[in-house]
Order: sequence, then C-alpha cells, then structure tokens
Amino acid sequence: MARQVELTIGVDVGGTKIAAGVVDPAGTVIDEVRVSTPATTAEAVETGIVTAVEQLAGKHTVEAVGIAIAGFVDESRATLRFAPNLPMEERPLQELLARATGLRSVVENDANAAAWGEFRFGGGRGSKDMVLLTVGTGLGGGIVLDDRLLRGAFGSAGEVGHVRMVPDGLACGCGNRGCWEQYSSGSALIREARALARSRPERAARLLDLAEGDAEAISGRMVTQAAAEGDPTALGLLAEVGRWLGEGIADLADILDPAAVVVGGGVSEAGDLLLQPAREAYEALLSAGGHRPHLKIVAAELGNAAGLVGAADLARHP
Amino acid sequence: MARQVELTIGVDVGGTKIAAGVVDPAGTVIDEVRVSTPATTAEAVETGIVTAVEQLAGKHTVEAVGIAIAGFVDESRATLRFAPNLPMEERPLQELLARATGLRSVVENDANAAAWGEFRFGGGRGSKDMVLLTVGTGLGGGIVLDDRLLRGAFGSAGEVGHVRMVPDGLACGCGNRGCWEQYSSGSALIREARALARSRPERAARLLDLAEGDAEAISGRMVTQAAAEGDPTALGLLAEVGRWLGEGIADLADILDPAAVVVGGGVSEAGDLLLQPAREAYEALLSAGGHRPHLKIVAAELGNAAGLVGAADLARHP
Amino acid sequence: MARQVELTIGVDVGGTKIAAGVVDPAGTVIDEVRVSTPATTAEAVETGIVTAVEQLAGKHTVEAVGIAIAGFVDESRATLRFAPNLPMEERPLQELLARATGLRSVVENDANAAAWGEFRFGGGRGSKDMVLLTVGTGLGGGIVLDDRLLRGAFGSAGEVGHVRMVPDGLACGCGNRGCWEQYSSGSALIREARALARSRPERAARLLDLAEGDAEAISGRMVTQAAAEGDPTALGLLAEVGRWLGEGIADLADILDPAAVVVGGGVSEAGDLLLQPAREAYEALLSAGGHRPHLKIVAAELGNAAGLVGAADLARHP
Amino acid sequence: MARQVELTIGVDVGGTKIAAGVVDPAGTVIDEVRVSTPATTAEAVETGIVTAVEQLAGKHTVEAVGIAIAGFVDESRATLRFAPNLPMEERPLQELLARATGLRSVVENDANAAAWGEFRFGGGRGSKDMVLLTVGTGLGGGIVLDDRLLRGAFGSAGEVGHVRMVPDGLACGCGNRGCWEQYSSGSALIREARALARSRPERAARLLDLAEGDAEAISGRMVTQAAAEGDPTALGLLAEVGRWLGEGIADLADILDPAAVVVGGGVSEAGDLLLQPAREAYEALLSAGGHRPHLKIVAAELGNAAGLVGAADLARHP
Repeated sequence: MARQVELTIGVDVGGTKIAAGVVDPAGTVIDEVRVSTPATTAEAVETGIVTAVEQLAGKHTVEAVGIAIAGFVDESRATLRFAPNLPMEERPLQELLARATGLRSVVENDANAAAWGEFRFGGGRGSKDMVLLTVGTGLGGGIVLDDRLLRGAFGSAGEVGHVRMVPDGLACGCGNRGCWEQYSSGSALIREARALARSRPERAARLLDLAEGDAEAISGRMVTQAAAEGDPTALGLLAEVGRWLGEGIADLADILDPAAVVVGGGVSEAGDLLLQPAREAYEALLSAGGHRPHLKIVAAELGNAAGLVGAADLARHP
Repeated sequence: MARQVELTIGVDVGGTKIAAGVVDPAGTVIDEVRVSTPATTAEAVETGIVTAVEQLAGKHTVEAVGIAIAGFVDESRATLRFAPNLPMEERPLQELLARATGLRSVVENDANAAAWGEFRFGGGRGSKDMVLLTVGTGLGGGIVLDDRLLRGAFGSAGEVGHVRMVPDGLACGCGNRGCWEQYSSGSALIREARALARSRPERAARLLDLAEGDAEAISGRMVTQAAAEGDPTALGLLAEVGRWLGEGIADLADILDPAAVVVGGGVSEAGDLLLQPAREAYEALLSAGGHRPHLKIVAAELGNAAGLVGAADLARHP
Repeated sequence: MARQVELTIGVDVGGTKIAAGVVDPAGTVIDEVRVSTPATTAEAVETGIVTAVEQLAGKHTVEAVGIAIAGFVDESRATLRFAPNLPMEERPLQELLARATGLRSVVENDANAAAWGEFRFGGGRGSKDMVLLTVGTGLGGGIVLDDRLLRGAFGSAGEVGHVRMVPDGLACGCGNRGCWEQYSSGSALIREARALARSRPERAARLLDLAEGDAEAISGRMVTQAAAEGDPTALGLLAEVGRWLGEGIADLADILDPAAVVVGGGVSEAGDLLLQPAREAYEALLSAGGHRPHLKIVAAELGNAAGLVGAADLARHP
Repeated sequence: MARQVELTIGVDVGGTKIAAGVVDPAGTVIDEVRVSTPATTAEAVETGIVTAVEQLAGKHTVEAVGIAIAGFVDESRATLRFAPNLPMEERPLQELLARATGLRSVVENDANAAAWGEFRFGGGRGSKDMVLLTVGTGLGGGIVLDDRLLRGAFGSAGEVGHVRMVPDGLACGCGNRGCWEQYSSGSALIREARALARSRPERAARLLDLAEGDAEAISGRMVTQAAAEGDPTALGLLAEVGRWLGEGIADLADILDPAAVVVGGGVSEAGDLLLQPAREAYEALLSAGGHRPHLKIVAAELGNAAGLVGAADLARHP
C-alpha cells in the first residue's frame, strides 16, 4: 500500500525529445512517456518537461521528480545554468516544476545522472567507487566515490573526454589538442574507418560493402557489425578505440582508484570487442599492478534509460 | 578546562625518523618530539612510534592518535598493509598502539594525511574540493572531495605521479613511460639542471658556481636559489617543471573539478617561480575556460608538518 | 657577343598564372612576362607556357628552357606525371616545347627548382649541401647534396612537410597524423592565431585590431606585422612555428648533415622573428653538438623568383 | 693475369679487433686475417692495422686499401678526426699507411662503408638510392643517393639513430629525448624484454627459461630464438621494434625517397619477424601512398663483412 509513495519520476531532456518514466525503488521503469520537443526556445522545452511529468503524475502517485539534462547545473541542483545544445540559460527548473505540478524535484547533469543509475542498478552495482564512461559521439563520464555522486566545485567533475592523452595531438573541437575523446569515441571510430576506406579500400571491403560503396556513409554500427562477423579490419578499428580507452582508464585509476569502470554509450554495444582491448591496455600499464587489486572494466547495463533511472533515484534521496 | 580532551597526537613516520606532535583543534602544534629510527625491522619502527606517543601523552591529556605513514593502509584505517620504503607488511598499528598506550588511533597514508592537513588548516582552507600535489623527489598527491578525504576502492587514490603525460615518454621507475613525475618533480628538475650543466656549461654558469664546479652536485635548492637571484637558466628550468605541473592540473580539473590545487613539497619552496608558470599552462589549456570558474593554484602552508597535523585532525574526527 | 647564347628561360607554372623570365648565368632575371592561366584544362596551361616562352624567345637569343611545376616529374625530366593542383597528368612537356618552339628544355618539380635557385644564387650560395624549407601554406622542401639536386628514386625527395613530428599528433590532409607542416607552416600560424583570438580575445587585441575585429580574417601577414611592432602574442605565435621548424631541422641534420638550411616561403618574411627561435630550438637539440660544426639557418634571398631562376639554371646544365 | 691488380684490401677497425680481407671486384673476400687489438693507445691500433695489411699484401698483389672505422673522418678521407670508442684523435691514417706499406688508401666511417658494401654487393644491389639501417646495440645508418655515398657537410650524414621520434620521449645517452634508437635497436629490444620478464614473468616464461631464470640475462638472441619458435611474447617484442623501424623509414622516405632500405645489424637476424612489422608500419603511414611506387625494405646480405667489403670497394674507386 505504502509502496506507491516511493515512486518517483525521472526525466531525460535531450535536444529533440524528452523521455520521462515512473521508476520504483528497484530502478524499474513501470511507465514511460516520450514528448518530442522543438528545441527552439527555453519555454518550449520547459512545457515539454511539465507535460511529460503531468501525464505520468496523473496516473501514478509519485513522491518527487529527477531531471537529467545535458548542461551545467547549480550547486543546489535547482537551476540549469547553461546547456551547450539547448536554448537555455539560467532556468530555475526546480521552481518551475514546483509551481506547475506541486512536486519536489532535483536537477542533475545527464552524464552524472546516468552514472548514478549505473551505480545503483546497472554495471556499477555493488561498487562504492565507480566511473561511468560513455563512449558515444564524444566521450563523457560521471563519477561516484564513496557512494556519492561527484559534482565538483563548479559542477563539472567527470568531463573526462578532454583529459589530454597526447601533447600536441589531434585537434579537438574544444580548442585543445590531444583530448581523450579524439582517440576514444564513436567519432574517432568513424573517422578512422572512413579514412581507411578511402586510402585502403581493399582492406575495408566489408565496411564498404555495408555502406553500399560510400566510404563517407560508414557508421559506427557498421563497424560493430563487421567486427561481430569477424572482419579483421573492423576488429582492429574497435581494438584501437579500446586501447586508448584502457590507457585513459589507467590514468583514472591512478587518480581515483575506483573499483569499477562501467562503459556505456553507442560504441559499447560492441561489448568485449571494445572492452577486451581496453582491459589489456589497462593491465599493460599497471606494471606496479602486483601491489593492488585491479579495477574491473564492465559494460553498462541500462542503455539509454540510465539517465532517466538515475535522475529518478537521485530525486528519491535528496 | 574541557579544552585538554580535544588535543590529539599526530605521528609522521618516515624512513629515518619519526616526528610526533600534540595538535589542538585549530591545527597548532603545541608540543613536538622527534625519534630517529633505524628502519631495519618493523619492531624498531613500531617501538619508535610508541615511544614518541608515550612521551607526549605523558605531558598532555590527549584524546586520540593519528599515524601518517608512507604506505598502503587497510580500509578500516587500522593496519599498514605494505610500505615500499619501510620493512613493514601487514602490521596492525592501531591494535599495537591501543595495547601499548590505551589510546584510540587511525592510520593513514602520509600523502593523504598531508592533504587533509592542508585542507583543514593550510592552503586548501575554505575549499570543499581540493587536491594537494607534493612536488618532492617524486610527485605525490592527496585528494579531498566534498569535505571528505578520497581513499579509493583499494586505498590508493591520489597516486597522481604516475598519470601518463606523454605516450612513449620518459622511462619511469614504475616500469611505465611518460609518467607525470618524470616531468614535474624535484628529480626532474635536478636531472635537467645537471644535463644542461654538462652539455652547456656556459649557460649553467651560476648553477655550476653554486655547485663548486661539479655538475653532478647541483641540487634543487641551488636551482631555486639561482632562480631567486634572477638567473635566466634556473628560471627556465623551474618554469619547465611548472609548465608540466599546470598541464597535469588541467587534466585533474577535467576529472575532479576541484576549487583549489595546493602545491607542496621541496620544489614548491620556489613559490611563484614554480606556480606562475603552472598557472599559465593551466589557463592555456582551458580554452573552454570561459564557461566555468577556474580553480586556484596556491602554495602549501604547513611545510613538513602537514602530515602530522593532518593525521592528528583525522584522529579527532574518526 | 657570345654572351647571348648563355641566356636561358625559366618558367614557373602555378595554379592561376605562369611567370617566365630570361635569366643570365649569374642568376639575374633580365626580362620577364606573366600570363594568367585559366587552369581548366591541360591544354590551356600548356598554351600559356608556350606563349610565355615564345614572347621571351622572340626578344632574346636563348639556349634552353627550364620549367618549374608543382607536381611529380619523370626521371628523364621530360614529362609531368601528376600535379595535385593542376588538371594535368602524363603530359610530355619537353616534347611539346620542342615541337612548338624548337627549344631544348628540362622539367622539374617547383620546390626542387627553387632549392636549386637558392643554392646557386641565394641563401645557400657557397654550401655544397643545403636544404631549402619553404614555409608557406604548407611546408615544402628541396635538397641539394654534394652540389647535386636530390630527386629521389621516384622523384619525390624533399617532401619534408609530411615527416611525422608527433605520434598521434594533429591530423593532416594527407591522412596521417602529426606531420611537420601541421606545426610549422603558414596554415599552422593562422590556425593558432585565430584560435587564440577566439578563446582569448584580450590577448589577441592587436591581431583583432588588424583584422577589423574578425578573428577568422587574421592572416599570416597580420601576425608578422604585429610581431614586427613588438606585440608579444604575435611574437609568441611566430616563435612557436619557429621552434617546431628548428626541431625538425635537427632531424634533417642527423640524416643529411647539410651545411645550410635556407628558409623561404611567405612566413619567412618575418625574418629573424621566425629564424631566431628556429636556431635556438635546433641548438637545444644538439646536445652532442660539441663534436661537430653546426649548420647555419638563413633566410632565402630570391623570394618568388627562386623557382624561375632555379629552373633556368637547371636548363643551362642539363 | 691483369686480374691481380684489381684486388684491394678492406680493413674494419673495431674496439677489440681488426678484421682485414682481400676483396675482388665482385665483392668476394678471397683471403682474410684478424688481429686482436688492445685498444689502449692510438699507436697500438695503428700497428694492428699495418700488421694486418702487411700480412695480406705479402700474399696478394693489391691496388689499394680501404679502412672502415667507427668515427668521424675528414673530408679528404685521409684522417680520422675523432672516434668515440677508440683512443684516437686527429690520426692521419692515410699518410701512415702510405709510409708503412707504400699503398694508397681511403678512410671511411664504418657505417658508411657498410652502406656502400650493401649497396654494391648486398641487399641494396640494383638500387641507385638506398639507406642502410644497422639495428644493433644502437641504430646506425649510411646513405647512398644517386650512386654516391652521402658524407654530409661535416662528415656525419646518416646518423639516423638520433632522429627524434617522440617529443619528450625516452631519454637517450646523447642527452636528448625520444631518439629513434631508444625505440628501435637491440638495446630497446633487450630493455623491453627484461622489463616484461620482471613485471609479468608468466608472460615471459620462455624467455626466462632461455635465460635460466634471470631476467637480467635475457639477450637479443634469446628473444629472436623464442620468436622463431613461435613464442607470442617474443614475437610481440620484435614486432614493436619493427613497428618503430617502419615508422621512421616512412620519415626517411619523405625526405630521401630511396628505392630501398636495407636492414642489417644483430637484430636483423630475426629476418621477417622484424621486417614484416616494419613493412606494415611503413605502409600504414603512406596514406598518400597510391601516388608513388613504394620503397622495398629488405635484409642486409653481407653480415659483419659489409664494412670490410665496402671499404675495399671504396678504395677501388677513389
């Protein structure tokens, strides 16, 4: 009976759509809605959030709302400060939601929310110290230390994609050179696959086949598919991304000493074809490794729902 | 009156001597003893610790003891697991001290204890999230996040000296290549100073002068002295170490987002001659820096007492 | 009287115009014509070449013609094999010119011709072994060893711009990473100047001033002008390009041991603002430098005429 | 009959012994002597040279002598300027030999002489432009361009081992960092093999077996033997040295455009276990490779005799 009051809503606000779900204390999404958002104005996005919450709150008794959003959030987790890919700046989302729905809420960066979701219910379950690495278009991250989400002094902890791996290395959109995500991300995978298909078409025959002959149409998914079939070129491309991933994980281990690194994002669908090279590169850098237990590198388990589920859980424990 | 019960003892166990002090809640060392230790057996070191504590406890009413020691400590902060530079393995120091003195104690890694000391009473005062970097023979570190000391899953968080700065870079004693401490440490400073004095004696005239003509006798202190006098070669050598320091701090900022980085260790006695180049290198890597407040890079304030003071304070808040 | 028969014509074939000149044995251009070329077909370019030669040959008694062209030339120096920026492939230019004008000719890669020009009459005069580095949009080169132009087994010696300076470094249009010209060229200078103007406008105030406020309008010439005025940011940008230049020259010295490196191209107009940092970086890498004489790094002297003058001289000594 | 006058003597002067041989115009050694030299004084070495030449000249009618010696030789190829590993400086060897034996001679750097030997009679036969890379303790080289030995302006062309492969890379005995020979040489092979045997003894089981359990006793020959047996660790170690070899060859190709790179030295006894990874790394860096023929990477054929045979041939063509 009392069970209903323990339900919370998680909202994942993306650039083109909003996903919201009712989540129980075990992390199960028991109901879900999606609202497509014309991300043209802050008001349109906010209306979408309120609409999604109202739809779910009309059907379930919920305790609170967690909002996961790709941007910087203030320290009190009430206001979205700045969102690179949304037309929003200094928006008091917590206040807005309270006024519109009467519900208590917390706002959190989406990568952080996803890290929390994986920590509580996914690949990081059972570890007190965990890093989530999201290998998607870029390389994102979230950190949980000693059972707490690390937010950082200015709300930007876990921006691991811009750690410098190579001095004077590949140029990054951030203006720096040699950023980790230039070597270990879906964009890196696609860039290298296409470059190879242009310069060595005979070696990329299977990839070109999947892309109907157009090197520029090769996608990350095609590389994963070809690798799963055993294509050595595709396996090599994934292994290279995995190698850089493992080398960066060794750095994170020196600094944070987590028990687990959970790898999510689109490229992680390649599973051990990505993770095994990452583990080997990590191990190879641990020459002093005999003296301490090694962290485990595992796949994320919640997929796209991680942010929503994590936000809902953060709302439960304010 | 109740004042006395708030005193604690901090003990800093080094390879050749043990320093112990009575510390008040404001971090002031009100009494101190030093015991030289023939670090030949675990028993000799432990006898030294007990002796030092007994001397102080005989004169002051103390509540508890904090032991800072260069090694890996178990999760319950009771047992020294392994100390690279001491003949000690699996030593239950907490139990030993309780039996010998009746006092409650906590055992902590010395770099962690020093970080805590600077966080509470030194350069990190007033920041909730702080990293201490100790630029001594090597490059050590300790991390405080959200007002808590980061210990890591296996007790080795903050081992920042072995973060890889350069793929296939300078060989490190740890077996890897390109470790940060090969570029930013007292050893790096001395190595480069001596190499320059050998290959370009005319440019290292002031350094050779201080070393009475023997390139191999150039010390870090001599470089600092020459730099303080304005010698351009010495300034350049310190600036190079500082540049690498700042570049690594930019990586730490991406991961941890601390409010402050406190720089201690012998080389930090050069003050702004080291820190200003570090700040400039850090700033130069923050091209996306407009969007967030910058951390401050400041000098440590407690000198050699940081470990002792930090350990004493950790003992107070078990 | 006999003087006239020693005249030759040099032709420099570029993407938009053809420059041709009558050159005497001392390397002096005594007459010159320019033909603008619509580089749409091979025939149009060839007609331009023939026209220019005929105009000059009508006024002077000339012995032979040297054609400098940006492309790969066959071993007998008769046929243009392939030109990346011209619509020409497998064109027998020597035969064409003989048929159209009755004159003997040699065809040479333009960077090689320019190297020969500087070797005979410019900055490399008096050295038997010399490298020309052309720091323009990219980084080109030509090599003279033991008084002979180095052509290489496949006609592509001296393509120094694609020597790898940084493993996994900046992406290059050639498909590789870390190529020298990504760090030391006019494009590199402009890229870094604009990036700085975007991220640190206050530091690039003088450059933005020259570019009327538009970071994307900053040119290499503006950087040189600001540097000549003493602007520290512009000086730093040139020094960085110069540093990479000198570091690569140290590699060339290990391999080729030339007596001189002559630096030409648009960026070299900055003179010692570019060359002095190059010299310092070169010297710094020569720690074993005591054992051998050092090469000299000097400015090119012939400017845009180097290719034309060099080609004319190559025609004289077939 | 006239045949005898075409014989010459080649002398290879090493640190502990002198090898001399009578060589015919086809590069065949038809007689040979060895003299062990106590390399304590210049005179002792010179007496050894004269003794060896006299022994051979007593039995054969020879035309001239070529002396290959590890050091810097003057431009007229008459005087040894400086030899890092012999007690000799400014020694007029040509004059000495003329006085003692009445024979004409040329003196040449040993790596250059070996390159000439391979060019004329070994792996470089048939190429006009060739580089010899000697992968021994260090990484040495000699260059033949357009059928001529490249000596360089100061006699030190071909010192390729100190080309910088990695900025801020592994420290080199020369005082610089990141030199090619730190990554591609017998010393590099042994260093990595021993490091692996220390840190991962289980993976280096076969190597430790060959070294009777002592990691520090692992030799390059043991790695080659284990690799020939199929041991994956040894294969990986050789492949790593080969990879760096090929990457540096790509740089040489950009500069020199040789038709062939001939690989000699002790490590080259591993044959294709070294050369195949080198070829693959070279090919991988040639993304613009479609436009030009590729150089071939082949094994040296003359072994230790290359210097002696090359010197003898250089003496024939003064």
